[in-house]
Amino acid sequence: MAERFSFRVALIGSGRLGTQLAMALEKGGHRIAEIFNPSQKSAEKLAYNLYSSQLVNSLDFSDSDCNFFIIAVPDEAIEQVATEIVLPDEAIIVHTSGATPMSILEVTAAENFGVLWPLQSFSHGATISFSQLPIIIEGSNDHTLEILNRVVASLGSEPVFMEEEERKNLHVAAVFASNFTNFMLRSAERVLEKDDISLDILKPLVVETIRKAFEIGPENAQTGPAAREDFTTIDAQTLLLADNESLQRMYRMISQEIIDSKYESDV
Amino acid sequence: MAERFSFRVALIGSGRLGTQLAMALEKGGHRIAEIFNPSQKSAEKLAYNLYSSQLVNSLDFSDSDCNFFIIAVPDEAIEQVATEIVLPDEAIIVHTSGATPMSILEVTAAENFGVLWPLQSFSHGATISFSQLPIIIEGSNDHTLEILNRVVASLGSEPVFMEEEERKNLHVAAVFASNFTNFMLRSAERVLEKDDISLDILKPLVVETIRKAFEIGPENAQTGPAAREDFTTIDAQTLLLADNESLQRMYRMISQEIIDSKYESDV
Repeated sequence: MAERFSFRVALIGSGRLGTQLAMALEKGGHRIAEIFNPSQKSAEKLAYNLYSSQLVNSLDFSDSDCNFFIIAVPDEAIEQVATEIVLPDEAIIVHTSGATPMSILEVTAAENFGVLWPLQSFSHGATISFSQLPIIIEGSNDHTLEILNRVVASLGSEPVFMEEEERKNLHVAAVFASNFTNFMLRSAERVLEKDDISLDILKPLVVETIRKAFEIGPENAQTGPAAREDFTTIDAQTLLLADNESLQRMYRMISQEIIDSKYESDV
Repeated sequence: MAERFSFRVALIGSGRLGTQLAMALEKGGHRIAEIFNPSQKSAEKLAYNLYSSQLVNSLDFSDSDCNFFIIAVPDEAIEQVATEIVLPDEAIIVHTSGATPMSILEVTAAENFGVLWPLQSFSHGATISFSQLPIIIEGSNDHTLEILNRVVASLGSEPVFMEEEERKNLHVAAVFASNFTNFMLRSAERVLEKDDISLDILKPLVVETIRKAFEIGPENAQTGPAAREDFTTIDAQTLLLADNESLQRMYRMISQEIIDSKYESDV
């Protein structure tokens, strides 16, 4: 375990990510001293689960004795928080967004600011172990980076340093790997709805597909009619989807991309 | 466990599915007596791992004492096997394909024929537990269905009865859920290749995404820029993919489908 050190943390935003991060930071030895959230309900619920936290209803932290500030609000609200927040001297402030530049925090007038982005999608109910997560960091200076390294270590995880451009690419990759795979499952579910069959029937197949993709790499793991260029099956399946234009369009398009991708490396 | 009964099985095709099915059937109390495969190598390897199996090099089984015949060859080869095979009296014959009609087996002259389709993608190396798999069956008559029910039970699984149309739909759904999700991971990997980052960084996110999709349903689990109709992020991410037309096209198209799908239920 890393050398013991701890922060007095102010958390702005007690949604799903903020809540889980606060609990994990407390376990890591920090004190979540103050919580700001427009809706008091989730803030109260979180405070109830923490050792000793105070709800605040202003972003003026000039009299606060917190030294680590975390913005965990929706991406589109970060700018407003950064503009309104008043920080004590020497404060460190981070946002937790993969898609937002670190420079959005320049207006806070803090010297030490950065990004701490846990690469995960957070749900109510499911407790995420931060020690299993890649946590992406960026800092305005070496001091901040050093601090962020230690904060991530206190969560039991290994920090991954990335600059903005790289983080943005990772965010796009995450959209393909998470949002779009989920939409493929939604599409499968819609095909099954015709016959009133539950998506559960596909669970062993999907779990094995994912396991295999990470074991041998998705390029080697690619199977199916398109990968085999089995146009008889592709045509038959396209026809089967005639009652749903959207599924048919996607089936056609992704099949074509799978076929094309086989030849791209030769070009 | 079901009442003990057993077959003398002839296996036509000792590829990945055939091999794993033969091993599982032997464990289930059956004898894999004969194996036919154009390439002897995989047949020999399988026979070596079984109790007592004989390699045969002809599809003329008229003198065979096998009573259960399994065709586990690539889809496009099933018809030729069905045309050439000569069966003993009273034989039961099945194919193992999700995409192929049961009626393709009518030319075998067997009265008892059917489909036994394990809904899984089989790899060399990874041993699949059939007891965890949905196995889809169809039979030419009640007797065959009764037999297939018992065979599936002897594999430790529950059979799922489906007629052809339903099985075809399930096969399309499997393409979305398995082949297309794998391709989304491949696409994520290509985005990461720009920065020389391994796909592994996305594994905790993907595992959680899949877990959540099956827990609360992919419709409820859908998140991301498109689900939020966050066009600022969608435009920025589309731009980031400018150096790869194929990824850009897919990003745009699937994002649009996610947006459209939110309104379809209202129509």
